[in-house]
Amino acid sequence: MEKQHKLRIGIFGGSGYGGSELLRILLFHPNVELVFVTANEQAGKPIGEVHRNLNGLTHLNFVKAPETLDAIDCVFLALPHGQAMDVVPGLPANVKAIDLSGDFRLRDQAVFEKHYKQPHTAMSSQAEFVYGLTETNREAIKQARLIANPGCFATATLLGMAPLVANHLLSGRVVVDAKTGSSGSGAKAAANTHHPQRMNSFYAYKPFTHQHVPEIEQELEHVGDWTSELVFMTHSLPVARGIFASIYAEAKEEMTEDEVRKLFADYYRESFFVRLVNGSPDINWVKTTNFCDIGFAARGRQIVVFSALDNLVKGAAGQAVQNMNLIFGLDETTGLKLVGTNP
Amino acid sequence: MEKQHKLRIGIFGGSGYGGSELLRILLFHPNVELVFVTANEQAGKPIGEVHRNLNGLTHLNFVKAPETLDAIDCVFLALPHGQAMDVVPGLPANVKAIDLSGDFRLRDQAVFEKHYKQPHTAMSSQAEFVYGLTETNREAIKQARLIANPGCFATATLLGMAPLVANHLLSGRVVVDAKTGSSGSGAKAAANTHHPQRMNSFYAYKPFTHQHVPEIEQELEHVGDWTSELVFMTHSLPVARGIFASIYAEAKEEMTEDEVRKLFADYYRESFFVRLVNGSPDINWVKTTNFCDIGFAARGRQIVVFSALDNLVKGAAGQAVQNMNLIFGLDETTGLKLVGTNP
Amino acid sequence: MEKQHKLRIGIFGGSGYGGSELLRILLFHPNVELVFVTANEQAGKPIGEVHRNLNGLTHLNFVKAPETLDAIDCVFLALPHGQAMDVVPGLPANVKAIDLSGDFRLRDQAVFEKHYKQPHTAMSSQAEFVYGLTETNREAIKQARLIANPGCFATATLLGMAPLVANHLLSGRVVVDAKTGSSGSGAKAAANTHHPQRMNSFYAYKPFTHQHVPEIEQELEHVGDWTSELVFMTHSLPVARGIFASIYAEAKEEMTEDEVRKLFADYYRESFFVRLVNGSPDINWVKTTNFCDIGFAARGRQIVVFSALDNLVKGAAGQAVQNMNLIFGLDETTGLKLVGTNP
Amino acid sequence: MEKQHKLRIGIFGGSGYGGSELLRILLFHPNVELVFVTANEQAGKPIGEVHRNLNGLTHLNFVKAPETLDAIDCVFLALPHGQAMDVVPGLPANVKAIDLSGDFRLRDQAVFEKHYKQPHTAMSSQAEFVYGLTETNREAIKQARLIANPGCFATATLLGMAPLVANHLLSGRVVVDAKTGSSGSGAKAAANTHHPQRMNSFYAYKPFTHQHVPEIEQELEHVGDWTSELVFMTHSLPVARGIFASIYAEAKEEMTEDEVRKLFADYYRESFFVRLVNGSPDINWVKTTNFCDIGFAARGRQIVVFSALDNLVKGAAGQAVQNMNLIFGLDETTGLKLVGTNP
Repeated sequence: MEKQHKLRIGIFGGSGYGGSELLRILLFHPNVELVFVTANEQAGKPIGEVHRNLNGLTHLNFVKAPETLDAIDCVFLALPHGQAMDVVPGLPANVKAIDLSGDFRLRDQAVFEKHYKQPHTAMSSQAEFVYGLTETNREAIKQARLIANPGCFATATLLGMAPLVANHLLSGRVVVDAKTGSSGSGAKAAANTHHPQRMNSFYAYKPFTHQHVPEIEQELEHVGDWTSELVFMTHSLPVARGIFASIYAEAKEEMTEDEVRKLFADYYRESFFVRLVNGSPDINWVKTTNFCDIGFAARGRQIVVFSALDNLVKGAAGQAVQNMNLIFGLDETTGLKLVGTNP
Repeated sequence: MEKQHKLRIGIFGGSGYGGSELLRILLFHPNVELVFVTANEQAGKPIGEVHRNLNGLTHLNFVKAPETLDAIDCVFLALPHGQAMDVVPGLPANVKAIDLSGDFRLRDQAVFEKHYKQPHTAMSSQAEFVYGLTETNREAIKQARLIANPGCFATATLLGMAPLVANHLLSGRVVVDAKTGSSGSGAKAAANTHHPQRMNSFYAYKPFTHQHVPEIEQELEHVGDWTSELVFMTHSLPVARGIFASIYAEAKEEMTEDEVRKLFADYYRESFFVRLVNGSPDINWVKTTNFCDIGFAARGRQIVVFSALDNLVKGAAGQAVQNMNLIFGLDETTGLKLVGTNP
Repeated sequence: MEKQHKLRIGIFGGSGYGGSELLRILLFHPNVELVFVTANEQAGKPIGEVHRNLNGLTHLNFVKAPETLDAIDCVFLALPHGQAMDVVPGLPANVKAIDLSGDFRLRDQAVFEKHYKQPHTAMSSQAEFVYGLTETNREAIKQARLIANPGCFATATLLGMAPLVANHLLSGRVVVDAKTGSSGSGAKAAANTHHPQRMNSFYAYKPFTHQHVPEIEQELEHVGDWTSELVFMTHSLPVARGIFASIYAEAKEEMTEDEVRKLFADYYRESFFVRLVNGSPDINWVKTTNFCDIGFAARGRQIVVFSALDNLVKGAAGQAVQNMNLIFGLDETTGLKLVGTNP
Repeated sequence: MEKQHKLRIGIFGGSGYGGSELLRILLFHPNVELVFVTANEQAGKPIGEVHRNLNGLTHLNFVKAPETLDAIDCVFLALPHGQAMDVVPGLPANVKAIDLSGDFRLRDQAVFEKHYKQPHTAMSSQAEFVYGLTETNREAIKQARLIANPGCFATATLLGMAPLVANHLLSGRVVVDAKTGSSGSGAKAAANTHHPQRMNSFYAYKPFTHQHVPEIEQELEHVGDWTSELVFMTHSLPVARGIFASIYAEAKEEMTEDEVRKLFADYYRESFFVRLVNGSPDINWVKTTNFCDIGFAARGRQIVVFSALDNLVKGAAGQAVQNMNLIFGLDETTGLKLVGTNP
């Protein structure tokens, strides 16, 4: 790509947290010109009035719909589940698309409809989609026109399991105890994010039924012929941002922590955004960044992997831009070295 | 009152936070038999299912409306603003009532209608109401049939100002910088209590226009012929519970901190629930209790009073029960020695 | 016990959080007269100055040491790990004792010394101790003179596992993913409880090595001949209070959620403080109370039990008083119906 | 400045929060080459191990002391109060310096010694220092070699008062009710930042005596011949980051909110980092950024100004870099468009 030409980008659905984070990244991406951002209720308003963090940093307004997609290189879809499938089939063939919703992640229509509780109306488009977990799918993503960006829980879980599964080291069921911050519930106020209650809460939800389970299993099959049982449980944390997954696996033979670490180091040699840490990662150190921090413990055949990321960045908007970078031949870290803070 | 006979009590509006706290207190009050608790959407459900803290502690269910008020001694009204005025005029003359809303606090209809933005339909009942700030109005409350329980901000502010105003020590405007926890917004989820945002927020709201201002001024006139200007500002804190008021006053002559303290100690000699502290109070030490902690600083003629209480207890349900105790000749602390926790 | 005579009680170590919670309960226990409370650095100070929640509620001062133990019925030891073993051997034979530390929980000296990293100097006293998990050990506790009060993680885990283990229903390893609030680290400030960092943190610690593991395994052997592997992992939550344990077990045969629930309901029929809930428990609903809330999910042979309690109450001081009640023939709930709050 | 040459920069004191934020900014500043970062206890350790947010983003290690200052253009001093005065007198004349501590802010030695409770040993150096509040002192800063970077409370207060004072519009005392997040207490754990207590706390501290008061008054005199009384009160908020100042002033004549706004808009016309907002600002929208958001309310002669900023950025490290930019002829926003997040 020549440096003179900037990618012309549009965002469908810019008023939620996914859109908010796409804006935070794309407005300052050196190779991007942001052409339009849609929003429904907020159409017409300045972006900086809705996302007040961006006040003074952009003059763009939300629009109801783009005037044209003619000269657009790529669109991001940050719409509620079920809406991307209305948009994608109508996209011009020259427009690439990265969908942050769950609409196009699952290859099996019946599985989709069971977990998302609605009919799928665009399965023929689905066949064109590549699953956008950058670290396991990098080469396919570079060639893709359409990307299904992974779910936040799926990203944390898959990054913590892929090296073990790809090397066929596990036997028996794997237990994943996953926890998310309150921004995972979206930008709309709801009973489970009501501050007086949530600030002192910790609880489990959707036992055995979270919609990220089938995409995790589908990708594990792709990574390493996964056939074991996955026991996956989601919990709610009283923080704004962060996913923490504790992954309990059993190796076929005894492994030391160092052996596990070496395995991960090899697998993620080219992956800037995976950081292997000593001891446990902490969501505090990845908040607002595109990093996934991974730590380990081992005893006999028991392996525990801890995986921490920001649900809105590596678990959503950051990974989406990482995929855009790959599709357009840029270094995957371009515009994504979002620096975290201490504290 | 004979110990054998328990007060027969009803609650109108038991599903919000005011109702929740009334239940926490009244279910365990040694002189109370709780006869009914109404709720609109939750009617028919066990109380312990809605207020899950009470699970296992009561078998009562919410009802749509009481079957009869015949043998009821007293009702608490914990309804949204504007609904108590529909209930009170229809109460039998033998039923006493304590209203936690703002409906009957203001004696001036025009002032009410300006601040609550609705017509008042029961001003003739209002004339019978006594303002229920126990510490300034104890004797009148003992004789009252109808009590207008003070607002949470008003309670914190008035307790911090009453001794100074009653002794005519102040000159010039008084600035009150008041802060509240998120439970002050009620039990319904709303944009300003959405956890991902609220947990990192602090902001001012309703500058100069908070509806508690006229009740504060009305009561200050009653306490000590108040004629000065009150600059009153409300802010939102990222905690669940607590009001903290910083009150900046100017004395007519220089006063030391000790002189201020002595003045307050005299004024609150009979008031168990006002605790004078060294240095600043902290909302942490009054949370879940009926205490109002008060501290001071002074320099020359400048006096600062810090007042801290739990908005749902001393600022609402606790004070309401304190008033009930007085009305029925009980010690005002009965059932109200709710012990706080560390941490 | 005659109602006229109150139990004469002393507390060793009243300045920490365990002591703070013992005071909150025992000062208001109808059958208790609190005779002394020791503290080291705070000796001489009023209790209400150190635990400012108790300001106005007690006139007691901390003492360096009791003058005599002659007329004392029972002492609570809320000392740092390693100090109770200095006190217990010197107690008069007529004084009962309940130790909240880990000093006397483990019957195997080598295991103690490995996990607590210090020599044990009073193993002969240890032999007299009964493990104070009320719900699994009620009859033995009634006869005991010395009680080793369980650890907070151990309580949450054991209450979630006991019915399954006692009925010999499990096969294979059990994974326990446990999380605690920051008060679990004690009342002294430390790097891991520094607010600017902790408020946005979630992380794992002490993988495979937490000192509660051996007491859990010891008690599981007692409850049901446990021989399986326990994979136990502790994590830190950014709340003040609460333990939440997610327990992943595999039944020998398929079980429905209802079957699991019935099993627990039978096992805890006499246990007021265990509440079985629909869906997941939430630490929000047990905070400041002596309840342990338990919920379930099941799929095929996979069983997940969620257990939530307040680490300082059911996980420490509350359970200690529950045991005192049993030892002295009182109803085990006496003085312990500490009502939680909403919010 | 030619673009080819980067400024060679050193940091004294890189392990605290001021240092942490300087690193977050300077490591990615386009015109900066970071040459050394000192730390005492952490000397020898990789920066990314101490500030784990920077893991993977720098290979620098902390050093005990720089080998030489010969080719250094500028140093930042982020040392505890009282240590910069040991360093500054020994700096080579060609090295510029920006001190984040309070050592060189006050021109009156007696006032310094009263507020900082230690002797001042370098008052001759002090005479060379320029007070680094960019928005009120821009031209002087451009010419300065030594900068005393303002305190966080002082920055919030002065930015909220300067336009009013510079235009001589106020009469009578001004009340400033200021609140800070817990990171204002520094990176070391302490009792007042112990998470179990702090998360539910709000309290006042240092009434009338905060060390930022004299620097505020000194700069107000400089800005507009200030002679009135300042009533300044600091409070602690349970958030990690943020200063919020509520400033209560009285105008000589009545002013509308619009008139106040216009005044501020004129005064800050050239000041990118001051954003005037409708209604109240919120610390949530400035966290991690160099913005100071300001809002207003007015009634008669009463004016309230609300000022919100991040204590570690505009209140410390960000403003320090803003000053560095000015000193070296760069646009003052260079490297400082740190984008906040929603949520």
